[in-house]
Amino acid sequence: MKVSKENQSIDIYTQTRNTNFDRFQGKHLLLELYGCNSDKLNDEIFLRCKIDNASKLARASVLNLVSNKFEPFGVTAIALLAESHLSIHTWPESQYAAIDIFTCGKNMLPNLASQFLIDQLEATNHILKIINRDYPTYIENQTRTVL
Amino acid sequence: MKVSKENQSIDIYTQTRNTNFDRFQGKHLLLELYGCNSDKLNDEIFLRCKIDNASKLARASVLNLVSNKFEPFGVTAIALLAESHLSIHTWPESQYAAIDIFTCGKNMLPNLASQFLIDQLEATNHILKIINRDYPTYIENQTRTVL
Repeated sequence: MKVSKENQSIDIYTQTRNTNFDRFQGKHLLLELYGCNSDKLNDEIFLRCKIDNASKLARASVLNLVSNKFEPFGVTAIALLAESHLSIHTWPESQYAAIDIFTCGKNMLPNLASQFLIDQLEATNHILKIINRDYPTYIENQTRTVL
Repeated sequence: MKVSKENQSIDIYTQTRNTNFDRFQGKHLLLELYGCNSDKLNDEIFLRCKIDNASKLARASVLNLVSNKFEPFGVTAIALLAESHLSIHTWPESQYAAIDIFTCGKNMLPNLASQFLIDQLEATNHILKIINRDYPTYIENQTRTVL
């Protein structure tokens, strides 16, 4: 997909407690998609499938996936990940979607998930904000175990 | 609860497309809690209850609530709201929780939910970042209907 000049990617490192960004593992991507395919934004099953695909691309493990269809338009779908969560809220009538990709862990690839969703929803424009979550340094090397 | 000098509240209006902030309705609170009560952070039922309470305080409608307990420590709980979502990820061993309160709508009170969770989890310090989601202006007055 062509990326217009309006598209933006913003790194926000405000007030982080970690000074070594290479070690930082709590990354939260806030993605706004504009000019999307309205039919896809209103298709609950399609969105559930794409959230699952995107999570796998990010190397995340989906533990639960919930969704809700609104009337007359709109869907919310949220994946509970072993590594935090991935959510999408859509307004098909406005061709707009608000997406969150919150991952923790050294080997996560949230940017791949982000680009995948931009492409799949056929967004003509987007804004991506990347927020570092202010984890205590001493939990950076801890991994989580699923029951 | 006493709020220490380390606690911070940051408004990030970067690159927003809306110039009239009073009309802005898509608000995303990113809350980091430190020094929390570890037992509470590891109590899945307690956290589900408090997320439900917090959602109601914010005037949100909980449509679904999912959670997962990790071993040996940690819980993730996410409420799917008619007005977006509220999530909490905890690391009891580090007395740390990462919370998201994403609400859309004119009458939402996400700050009440934020303060409630700070108090209930007995956080000694916190960082709150408030992010405006870049909704298209023309959806600002639209409400969502639950099926």
